[in-house]
Amino acid sequence: MKARQIVEEMDSYVPGRSQDEIAQDFGLKKEDIIKLGSNENPWGPSPKALKAIEEEMSAINRYPESQLHELVEEIAKYSDVDTSQVIVGGDGADEIIDVLAKTFIDNGDEFIVPLPSYMYYEYLLKQYGAKPVYARWDLDENRLDVDSIYEKISPKTKMIFLCSPNNPTGTLIEKETLREIASKNPEILIVIDEAYFEYSEVTNKDLIDEFDNIFIIRTMSKVLGLAGMRIGYGLACSQIIEYMHRIKPVFSLTRLSFVAALNTFRDSEYIESSIKRGIESRQYLYDEVSKIDGLYVFPSKSNFMLIRVKDTGFTASELAHELMKRGVIVRDCTSFKGLDEYWIRISICTLEEDERFIEILKEVLS
Amino acid sequence: MKARQIVEEMDSYVPGRSQDEIAQDFGLKKEDIIKLGSNENPWGPSPKALKAIEEEMSAINRYPESQLHELVEEIAKYSDVDTSQVIVGGDGADEIIDVLAKTFIDNGDEFIVPLPSYMYYEYLLKQYGAKPVYARWDLDENRLDVDSIYEKISPKTKMIFLCSPNNPTGTLIEKETLREIASKNPEILIVIDEAYFEYSEVTNKDLIDEFDNIFIIRTMSKVLGLAGMRIGYGLACSQIIEYMHRIKPVFSLTRLSFVAALNTFRDSEYIESSIKRGIESRQYLYDEVSKIDGLYVFPSKSNFMLIRVKDTGFTASELAHELMKRGVIVRDCTSFKGLDEYWIRISICTLEEDERFIEILKEVLS
Repeated sequence: MKARQIVEEMDSYVPGRSQDEIAQDFGLKKEDIIKLGSNENPWGPSPKALKAIEEEMSAINRYPESQLHELVEEIAKYSDVDTSQVIVGGDGADEIIDVLAKTFIDNGDEFIVPLPSYMYYEYLLKQYGAKPVYARWDLDENRLDVDSIYEKISPKTKMIFLCSPNNPTGTLIEKETLREIASKNPEILIVIDEAYFEYSEVTNKDLIDEFDNIFIIRTMSKVLGLAGMRIGYGLACSQIIEYMHRIKPVFSLTRLSFVAALNTFRDSEYIESSIKRGIESRQYLYDEVSKIDGLYVFPSKSNFMLIRVKDTGFTASELAHELMKRGVIVRDCTSFKGLDEYWIRISICTLEEDERFIEILKEVLS
Repeated sequence: MKARQIVEEMDSYVPGRSQDEIAQDFGLKKEDIIKLGSNENPWGPSPKALKAIEEEMSAINRYPESQLHELVEEIAKYSDVDTSQVIVGGDGADEIIDVLAKTFIDNGDEFIVPLPSYMYYEYLLKQYGAKPVYARWDLDENRLDVDSIYEKISPKTKMIFLCSPNNPTGTLIEKETLREIASKNPEILIVIDEAYFEYSEVTNKDLIDEFDNIFIIRTMSKVLGLAGMRIGYGLACSQIIEYMHRIKPVFSLTRLSFVAALNTFRDSEYIESSIKRGIESRQYLYDEVSKIDGLYVFPSKSNFMLIRVKDTGFTASELAHELMKRGVIVRDCTSFKGLDEYWIRISICTLEEDERFIEILKEVLS
């Protein structure tokens, strides 16, 4: 059987190694590994979410409900939008991006991503025959190069992906910039990825009332502590949401993800404390890493930060390997387009883990 | 924003009502409702799966693993195939069908489905610009009309969907028939949906060694008791599996789905007893429904059976409504293409529920 041309041309999928495999390869105990690689909430899920899972688990032989009314209502309340402006995805933000592509992308369309940014937009949109066109983040100035976006717009441009705070730079995009791009390009969907917005204490969700070409991506995988349960959502004008509902998978959210999501949104104490502790950890890591010779760290509005390691004499891959041997997983950013081989990204952890990480990092670099 | 032409032409999504809403509308207690509508395992999930969920739940703030090696190994063992012949999906069999479409379907391709059959193939494949072409099940003879398939094959045919046992008829397709269709059409992918194979005690999985154009769909939503956790898998030659891995969602299986799946496959006692009890319930329901005047019930190799209600004077919709008022959910099959408005489908339940259902059914029809 021949696959579609697009699939034939794609590289074979190379899975990452599991934590078990890493532990085995490096002779580590799994529970001792410090995970600074995936931008998760290190304090665990909401206790209310856990309680809800426990109460629901005996019913997992039953299909989930498909319409998710209650969850849509909680999200609308949390986001201060109307329920008609909300769509829920059952594979984190990834499903939201996939359904967006399926709703709007025709073979041959183009989409713009300023580099470096989240690489999964490209992974998904290419599957629909779309062509990535790259704009740039100005790493020297630590801001979006807006002109580089305008230069790349063509009649084929269907979407522009803007991650704010941006992964991996941690930088916010000014709301005025987003407004300008949206108003100058009413035929292009401006997709604003707010996966990390809680840590920046800034949102652009009010723009969905102003513009019918703005889409906000959100996730429960970061501050909301549910990366393992795969829940994402999107906010946009009701017309876009209605289109997406026509083709979205009907049962993709598991029963336990549903109750975990619902009860996390209802646990405002958990959410507030997760944000507060996350920002404290970020400040600590920024201050400590800044003091280390040879490292340049970007100030961040997110739960991670980007570090240039060029002056240490290590490549990112070498440094990540040295840290891994000592039980620390960081993100080697070499695979991010738009970055050379000298960048790593670290996530916030608990203060205790932060301290151990800083010690180990100093040891490796000394 | 204009959506793709295909999406513009689709109907707006009309969600089904939730069990809560049904209970409220009919003044019922949710726990008293007898669910004969969704072909689930009525005896609940495996206790080993529940234990595993309990042990894993504190880690749901962490991303799932992406490669799922351990689960692929369990599935290969359960299915008696090689691990390279297995792909796992994170939204039940639905994700498997979606990834199949994304791997093989180009705009304008055709696929064949004999009617009546599972309607979700069409829902998904249309989104990729494919055109459904209908063959037929011979309802008088209660078997697949093979000639009707051969008549519909064209140079544009990319896939043929054959559900065995078929939903909603409960009928098996002979292995020799499948072999013949596959060998005569090496350029067409023959997709055999074995969602219910355990209840028939027959599988066609050995055909994937004979043919590189056969794909077997499986799910954990039926006898394996995990409908709410959304786990499906596919079996095929390693080339097809490798193509699909290039584009499949990376993290779509939740952490708790993963451990639930793993530990259900390891619980052979649960699986065997679920099959045995399911077959007993099927026999009981078949015998009892057969005795009721005005109902014609199809013998079934699955965990559901199709009933013609025309001679009762009720349409399926009217009968389903009368049953619902009394707390019983059955599947009104009017929305199945290829069936008229006089068919319902019932699933196996516990023997106690079966008995109550038969009583209520007799009461409605008396």
